[in-house]
Amino acid sequence: MAGSTFGTYFKITTWGESHGAGIGVVIDGCPAGLPLAESDIQKDLDRRRPGQSRFTTQRAEGDQVEILSGIFEGLTTGTPISLLVRNQDHRSADYSEISSYYRPGHADFGYDAKYGFRDYRGGGRSSGRETIGRVAAGAVARKLLVSLGIRVLAYTVSIGPVSIDFSRFEEAQIEQNPLRMPDSAAAEAAQEFLREQMAKCDSAGGIIECRIDGVPAGLGAPAFEKLDANLAKALMSVGAVKGVEIGDGFAAAASSGSINNDPFRLTDGKISKETNHSGGILGGISDGSRILLRAAVKPTPSISSPQKTVSKNGEPVEIQIKGRHDPVIVPRAVPVIEAMAALVLTDALFENMTSRLDGIRKFYGFNTVQ
Amino acid sequence: MAGSTFGTYFKITTWGESHGAGIGVVIDGCPAGLPLAESDIQKDLDRRRPGQSRFTTQRAEGDQVEILSGIFEGLTTGTPISLLVRNQDHRSADYSEISSYYRPGHADFGYDAKYGFRDYRGGGRSSGRETIGRVAAGAVARKLLVSLGIRVLAYTVSIGPVSIDFSRFEEAQIEQNPLRMPDSAAAEAAQEFLREQMAKCDSAGGIIECRIDGVPAGLGAPAFEKLDANLAKALMSVGAVKGVEIGDGFAAAASSGSINNDPFRLTDGKISKETNHSGGILGGISDGSRILLRAAVKPTPSISSPQKTVSKNGEPVEIQIKGRHDPVIVPRAVPVIEAMAALVLTDALFENMTSRLDGIRKFYGFNTVQ
Amino acid sequence: MAGSTFGTYFKITTWGESHGAGIGVVIDGCPAGLPLAESDIQKDLDRRRPGQSRFTTQRAEGDQVEILSGIFEGLTTGTPISLLVRNQDHRSADYSEISSYYRPGHADFGYDAKYGFRDYRGGGRSSGRETIGRVAAGAVARKLLVSLGIRVLAYTVSIGPVSIDFSRFEEAQIEQNPLRMPDSAAAEAAQEFLREQMAKCDSAGGIIECRIDGVPAGLGAPAFEKLDANLAKALMSVGAVKGVEIGDGFAAAASSGSINNDPFRLTDGKISKETNHSGGILGGISDGSRILLRAAVKPTPSISSPQKTVSKNGEPVEIQIKGRHDPVIVPRAVPVIEAMAALVLTDALFENMTSRLDGIRKFYGFNTVQ
Amino acid sequence: MAGSTFGTYFKITTWGESHGAGIGVVIDGCPAGLPLAESDIQKDLDRRRPGQSRFTTQRAEGDQVEILSGIFEGLTTGTPISLLVRNQDHRSADYSEISSYYRPGHADFGYDAKYGFRDYRGGGRSSGRETIGRVAAGAVARKLLVSLGIRVLAYTVSIGPVSIDFSRFEEAQIEQNPLRMPDSAAAEAAQEFLREQMAKCDSAGGIIECRIDGVPAGLGAPAFEKLDANLAKALMSVGAVKGVEIGDGFAAAASSGSINNDPFRLTDGKISKETNHSGGILGGISDGSRILLRAAVKPTPSISSPQKTVSKNGEPVEIQIKGRHDPVIVPRAVPVIEAMAALVLTDALFENMTSRLDGIRKFYGFNTVQ
Repeated sequence: MAGSTFGTYFKITTWGESHGAGIGVVIDGCPAGLPLAESDIQKDLDRRRPGQSRFTTQRAEGDQVEILSGIFEGLTTGTPISLLVRNQDHRSADYSEISSYYRPGHADFGYDAKYGFRDYRGGGRSSGRETIGRVAAGAVARKLLVSLGIRVLAYTVSIGPVSIDFSRFEEAQIEQNPLRMPDSAAAEAAQEFLREQMAKCDSAGGIIECRIDGVPAGLGAPAFEKLDANLAKALMSVGAVKGVEIGDGFAAAASSGSINNDPFRLTDGKISKETNHSGGILGGISDGSRILLRAAVKPTPSISSPQKTVSKNGEPVEIQIKGRHDPVIVPRAVPVIEAMAALVLTDALFENMTSRLDGIRKFYGFNTVQ
Repeated sequence: MAGSTFGTYFKITTWGESHGAGIGVVIDGCPAGLPLAESDIQKDLDRRRPGQSRFTTQRAEGDQVEILSGIFEGLTTGTPISLLVRNQDHRSADYSEISSYYRPGHADFGYDAKYGFRDYRGGGRSSGRETIGRVAAGAVARKLLVSLGIRVLAYTVSIGPVSIDFSRFEEAQIEQNPLRMPDSAAAEAAQEFLREQMAKCDSAGGIIECRIDGVPAGLGAPAFEKLDANLAKALMSVGAVKGVEIGDGFAAAASSGSINNDPFRLTDGKISKETNHSGGILGGISDGSRILLRAAVKPTPSISSPQKTVSKNGEPVEIQIKGRHDPVIVPRAVPVIEAMAALVLTDALFENMTSRLDGIRKFYGFNTVQ
Repeated sequence: MAGSTFGTYFKITTWGESHGAGIGVVIDGCPAGLPLAESDIQKDLDRRRPGQSRFTTQRAEGDQVEILSGIFEGLTTGTPISLLVRNQDHRSADYSEISSYYRPGHADFGYDAKYGFRDYRGGGRSSGRETIGRVAAGAVARKLLVSLGIRVLAYTVSIGPVSIDFSRFEEAQIEQNPLRMPDSAAAEAAQEFLREQMAKCDSAGGIIECRIDGVPAGLGAPAFEKLDANLAKALMSVGAVKGVEIGDGFAAAASSGSINNDPFRLTDGKISKETNHSGGILGGISDGSRILLRAAVKPTPSISSPQKTVSKNGEPVEIQIKGRHDPVIVPRAVPVIEAMAALVLTDALFENMTSRLDGIRKFYGFNTVQ
Repeated sequence: MAGSTFGTYFKITTWGESHGAGIGVVIDGCPAGLPLAESDIQKDLDRRRPGQSRFTTQRAEGDQVEILSGIFEGLTTGTPISLLVRNQDHRSADYSEISSYYRPGHADFGYDAKYGFRDYRGGGRSSGRETIGRVAAGAVARKLLVSLGIRVLAYTVSIGPVSIDFSRFEEAQIEQNPLRMPDSAAAEAAQEFLREQMAKCDSAGGIIECRIDGVPAGLGAPAFEKLDANLAKALMSVGAVKGVEIGDGFAAAASSGSINNDPFRLTDGKISKETNHSGGILGGISDGSRILLRAAVKPTPSISSPQKTVSKNGEPVEIQIKGRHDPVIVPRAVPVIEAMAALVLTDALFENMTSRLDGIRKFYGFNTVQ
């Protein structure tokens, strides 16, 4: 399957390891004519970057992006856009010890089983740094979507046991606190919780929600390429995500049809829905309402308290992971979730253009049936 | 994206509508030499078929499968296997009314937005009958997996508010009650709940769990083709599924690293794990433990109590859906979830064969480095 | 690779063997709103059918197509179109002998090497009957293309040593003679040649040319998805094709840049070219001129004169192939070439719709930059 | 279609323009454990590089490759291999003039039609420099193939009217003359011909042949993924290629079945063929004989003699192309053809591993039927 390519129309291919020369992505299928500069991409990379607060790893990486191809006179040309971020702070020494054993909660064992050996430095390809390519490509997709009136917004709704109160939801708060919570009181409580976890050399997880507004009805396809199916794959492909919901998600399983069904109505001459339990997607196809997703992020597996595990030969060992690790990766995962959602939406927008013969005929300038 | 194809190696393409001539699937990439008869497939189709109990639609369909190609002298030949199930009980009359309005909770509106019009008879392509092709193909995949020691088992863990008690888990129970619950007491309670919902002309949802045993470590791929990402897509592509979890899923978001990390250990000379919060997949690659998934199924949207909605022109109408509908689709979705999981596993097994040069060299009979 | 799927947007999956229950194809990605009836498809199947003249096999097959899905009230719905042709004249007995040896010029040996055994009846999946699915899908693609002003026309330009004289080219002739040659004199000479070959229990090959008119400039993509690259694959994927040319083809290799370059000019306010050595494609992208392709078809390998070969165990045997075989397959391959060209063009038309941001914005109704 | 990705298993994605920051390729799906250094790749890049003789452009490019990812301790890790070649000799000034008109024989017009504008510097993405990524990826594929006993060798068989004499074929000659002809006398004559063309400010084309030895029988797939179909696409996707043949190619069209059929025989206990008119592929599947391909390369379109064409607005102009151009690109295309053939073969080798259940069972260590 050659796992590093995502998307059919707006297709991205990421590459790179935690401690290799760099990380990058090739975007193939971006339409010509989109104004694009490195600053458009850097903006999102800076939100993903380490060192933003005490709750993110202190690894020193500027994560500066270089556009290597696909842009001419400030516009995308329709040909592949290659983006490169050089790794700077390798510090391979920190990781040499972990070559000999399997870290609990990490991909080490599976990689060895699959490939016979692994680049153990910082997790190699399984490192969270792999998401740099996703965020960079997602920034391009998001710029394209915005030009079509579609907006993707993600934020933290819980950290460990601390959840936001939606009645206090304030979008402006999101980038105002280090946890990207749209509720400053919850953000305070969550920070307090995280400080406790850090004092115990432990870590935390959380839940990220993502809203997509401005999506026209009709995106997605029947059967396997349902819009929510692709969103589920996109979100679950992010390393630490263990669950995905659309609309009411698991709560819908305990509901009744009479409640869960969203009645259609007419508002301002447009068909819309009175409620949105479906999360904007019915039968895999967007229904014109806000798309609403949630992803469950597990606690950072790299904790500094002692852990039991085995060596490559199966001998029991007790380990203590060194190095600089995020006590919680949720806030840094927020731009990754936005990127993945944007990539899926872009693909669905393009797919939809060939759904109807009359649309194709109009596109090519045929107005009467021949 | 042409949504009706799934898989890369063991690739299936489904087709058919609720009230067309039939439903079918083409399987391309099934290896040669697998013994296969129609009875192998019929067995699973019978578990998905309508009319199994009072909790499933009474539509009269035998759902008899015919193998049209790909088998010679009882064995798969390696060429496409085409499977056909003719529709019998069309009764299009029941559905003629629904052509004029949009049923809440159904794909009607999105299909019209996408395609300009729709085959409104029984939901057309968005009907649950589309899953016949999935179950048929899944039966082939499951037979192949079993021959390699891999077993996929799904069952109902909750219906509306009624959940099973895992301390009473009895596999033999699953096919003994109409809800496919592995706990007879819970099955009784859930049936009672369903009778109440039916009396109220309402419907219910539930949660399906799926265990996959015997999976070798190393299946899946880094980045986008993570094994859990593909499982999430597979499950979310089933019409009524609104949420997907792997391992502890959303509960992991509230856990701590010290608890959620599964320590590795040596048992019987084999590296395994003490716990399995990860659900058998770490970093997108199987870790050799049981794979554990859950899918949230929404309540059947077709309820016979009156509902508000709009006509195609946006005029408010009150409707009452007639016809024969499942008050809960969870038990019939159980074999569909098994099928989808089996398809993903088969693909991952095939993908993994080219991961290592030494494996390839061994396969082609080269034993020394040249 | 699972070889039976072709196309990315207008995606077809064929299935079926020479002596199985039938042959078919699933078309996924056909836009909604195309009027389509079985007669649209039957027309082309009849041109591919056996028994049309003394130069085609006398196997008695009506090759009647049945549409199983994807059509509602006479229009395509945008969902998969499944087409079925039942095999009638199996006569498996004719083929039982060939199970034990490898026919020269046939795929028998390769299939055994690949799959361990083979459906030897009539060549199984490697039979020319596999092209029924292609022609059926191609008929749909051609109808769609015609509605957009694009026309695909193929014909025979040579049979063995007999070539047409382009100064006598008459399109109306093509369906007037059994060899599909647009030059009646050449057709006469070729028939005479074929009668001689048949008398010698021998067979012949030939060359098919294909013109595609009405193609807008800009179809195709840089690098690997060049329009001519996909056409080459499409044509070479037809069993007996051993060579493919675009424009001047091999003759271009002996030409000079000053001659081979086609000067651009303005005609009727439109940029066109004075000559068309390129065959309508430059750098993999259509240049608005007629696309011109040629495919070399090898002589039918099934000849009734005695041949040397080996048995499955490698023992030398002399064989004499029985059964009903075309002395030349070129005329029946003409609609297959048309089908394959039409499939590639349809895909390229769809691909091109997302090439430019301004086109996408226009499609979705955004007219001003935001 | 997003045209810059090639291959399904061993998947490559190229990027870069003639006068952008650089050119590169990402290889995804290379198995773990292949020893790989930059020198393995540089070797082939040096054969493609400009400035090798008076018959290649004098553009000064070192084309030094940097491996950015996918290698650890000298071995491939199974994760994406990113390769980068920085452009050095941009000299954009040379090209500024060509922005205003359409060069005959080039992709300029099609790119404008497709994308609305183009990076006109040196042809942008349509430049021959795009093949750097192909050759780099091909070098990795070739190293892998060699370790499995498969060898790809290409060479020039004609330049303009000058063809080699196969009775004088000498492999060692290929890299001894600037035209990569395996016949020194023909190479001399061809150089003389080229000098004449250059004196006339004209250019030449030619034919490249490619032999692939050591291919096991059974590679390729029925229907659309025939091995020769993929080879045809691969070769035709190289910018200047206008025709592709396998085995006897177009000559087969004029042959008879009795001659064109290759009799099977037993040699050294192995089934082989007495002749090889088929070029090593029957029914799309390798037959164990040498695979033999030919590609027709058109004359370089950039010639310095005056040419007629039109401006972007359609006004007639007479142009004279400046800059440094190859009078013939055939010798530099030889390593590109080798690369493309190697990529297809690698993919086919991987595809074939899942053809038979017994092979899969053996791979995973199951030896008895369950």
